[in-house]
Amino acid sequence: MMTRAECARWLASRDGFLILTHGRPDGDTVGCSAALCLALRKLGKSAFVLENEEMIDKYAPLHENLTQKEPKPGDILVSVDVSAPHLLPPAALPLAEKIQLRIDHHYTSTSFAPNELVDSAAAACTEIIYDVICELGVALDEPIARALYTGTATDSGCFRYSSTSAHTHLVAAACMEAGLDAAPINLKLFDTVSLNSLRMQAWAIENTRFLLDGRVALCPMPKDTKEKLGIPEEEGGNLSGFLRSIEGVCMAATVRETDEGVTMISMRSLPGFDSSAVCALFGGGGHKAAAGGHKEAPYLEVADEVGRAMCAAVEQAWTAS
Amino acid sequence: MMTRAECARWLASRDGFLILTHGRPDGDTVGCSAALCLALRKLGKSAFVLENEEMIDKYAPLHENLTQKEPKPGDILVSVDVSAPHLLPPAALPLAEKIQLRIDHHYTSTSFAPNELVDSAAAACTEIIYDVICELGVALDEPIARALYTGTATDSGCFRYSSTSAHTHLVAAACMEAGLDAAPINLKLFDTVSLNSLRMQAWAIENTRFLLDGRVALCPMPKDTKEKLGIPEEEGGNLSGFLRSIEGVCMAATVRETDEGVTMISMRSLPGFDSSAVCALFGGGGHKAAAGGHKEAPYLEVADEVGRAMCAAVEQAWTAS
Repeated sequence: MMTRAECARWLASRDGFLILTHGRPDGDTVGCSAALCLALRKLGKSAFVLENEEMIDKYAPLHENLTQKEPKPGDILVSVDVSAPHLLPPAALPLAEKIQLRIDHHYTSTSFAPNELVDSAAAACTEIIYDVICELGVALDEPIARALYTGTATDSGCFRYSSTSAHTHLVAAACMEAGLDAAPINLKLFDTVSLNSLRMQAWAIENTRFLLDGRVALCPMPKDTKEKLGIPEEEGGNLSGFLRSIEGVCMAATVRETDEGVTMISMRSLPGFDSSAVCALFGGGGHKAAAGGHKEAPYLEVADEVGRAMCAAVEQAWTAS
Repeated sequence: MMTRAECARWLASRDGFLILTHGRPDGDTVGCSAALCLALRKLGKSAFVLENEEMIDKYAPLHENLTQKEPKPGDILVSVDVSAPHLLPPAALPLAEKIQLRIDHHYTSTSFAPNELVDSAAAACTEIIYDVICELGVALDEPIARALYTGTATDSGCFRYSSTSAHTHLVAAACMEAGLDAAPINLKLFDTVSLNSLRMQAWAIENTRFLLDGRVALCPMPKDTKEKLGIPEEEGGNLSGFLRSIEGVCMAATVRETDEGVTMISMRSLPGFDSSAVCALFGGGGHKAAAGGHKEAPYLEVADEVGRAMCAAVEQAWTAS
């Protein structure tokens, strides 16, 4: 495992970089690639980001004038925020074995590049890229700061998640000292919701069972719900997370009927309550705060079972504390 | 006007402080008073916060073991985050003229204390208190960090508002370096919504007119809306702000019927659009981003007028840009 300084020296002694991002790109992988590419260019090096065919409008401006359609012979491949080779976008999959440097903040037990700088304590991979850029002796400018801030803010939930550290805030401070106006970025990323998510939420509020004096929220969803509401299948947002955010709710779940006869469970809980333990009863698992499960049974039947299990878990945690 | 260093010297050379907060206390005034009180006590001084009869549950723990019911003779009165004497809570109003030091971040042209440290560039008054505590040579501990972080995060909208600066993030970083676990605070302050707000929002989504391809959102509200939904008058949240947050919406307004025959308008807009100019047509005003107005006419009639004015304003701004 490299240190930040070793990584910077490795980059400084080479030239001709092509930076790879992960599939279904988020603000962090896009921010990392843009910031690193711009910093390397400021050192007079040739650096590009491989075009990501799954790029979305929200982050596309960060890659403007930085992308290259295909790898050139001799390109030094660097992956950022990619925790496993299969997470590369389809067009980049054949390049996985040629990655020479991986910079990441996801904890994984297996490495896949000869040189790796991985720090799972970082809330965002851009935090690591920031340190490397400092080690390279490159001063932040507005475009680099914009890229670093976008990654740092998105992956830390705008500094709300438990992964946020003093370092996360220090990176944001450095970006603002470099002249970044963060407010328009925050407005776009954190203060805008889609009408379809809101319609889905409005439906959920009317159809959720609030149990145990509102400490448990359970929303059974028939399979034609989105169709009836005119909401595309991939839209509608994170409904169990939404239900968990309601004041007083400790544990929330959606219990969703599917075309395949399997009922899918998605669960969220506050600190002190264990969603993964409840989901383990339904062939699933995950984290304490967020877990999932499934059962081959009618969804209303599963909903009753899940409701009983959640109430038992919440009551137990409540009396134990 | 004092500097931070002068203010610290002023405090260091005195003893026996009583700190005053503003009425309808928020995280900033409560955080300021708690942090300053704790820091003065760490210097071995006698310091208390005057009990605020309007304190709410959310912030009450910050004042635990710090409050005093009434002023004692000789108490040195210091106000924090209070921009005008009439904003003190009722029980503190008679003390207004005795305030010896005012620390604040609200811009006002009039002063009301013989010693003032006011910096309107600070997103939160806790940012100024942090600087003063550093000048006093007091190291942050967890309770001081908790108080400073609460104020800083609440007044900056968890670092989302345009008032957020590098200094805002540096204060947050210092709090976390002092051992603060900010995640539970963030969860409580920024990731919890009341069911009544959500019920109000669900109603609004079904009853809002989306004009100009969804760039304008207009919600006419009959006077019995909350009553019919079973929502107390003071609850239900900031509905025009909610409508503005919908993807694609540039300008949003609620047009509310009242018992008095006056129709009330509340308007919000994205940067680049001027709510105050539109509200000026309806006997009101405010800021570009948030404004209000009113008209003595039936609310549906006013709604049509407001809708036309908003569409004209958005189209004009759109073609101008």
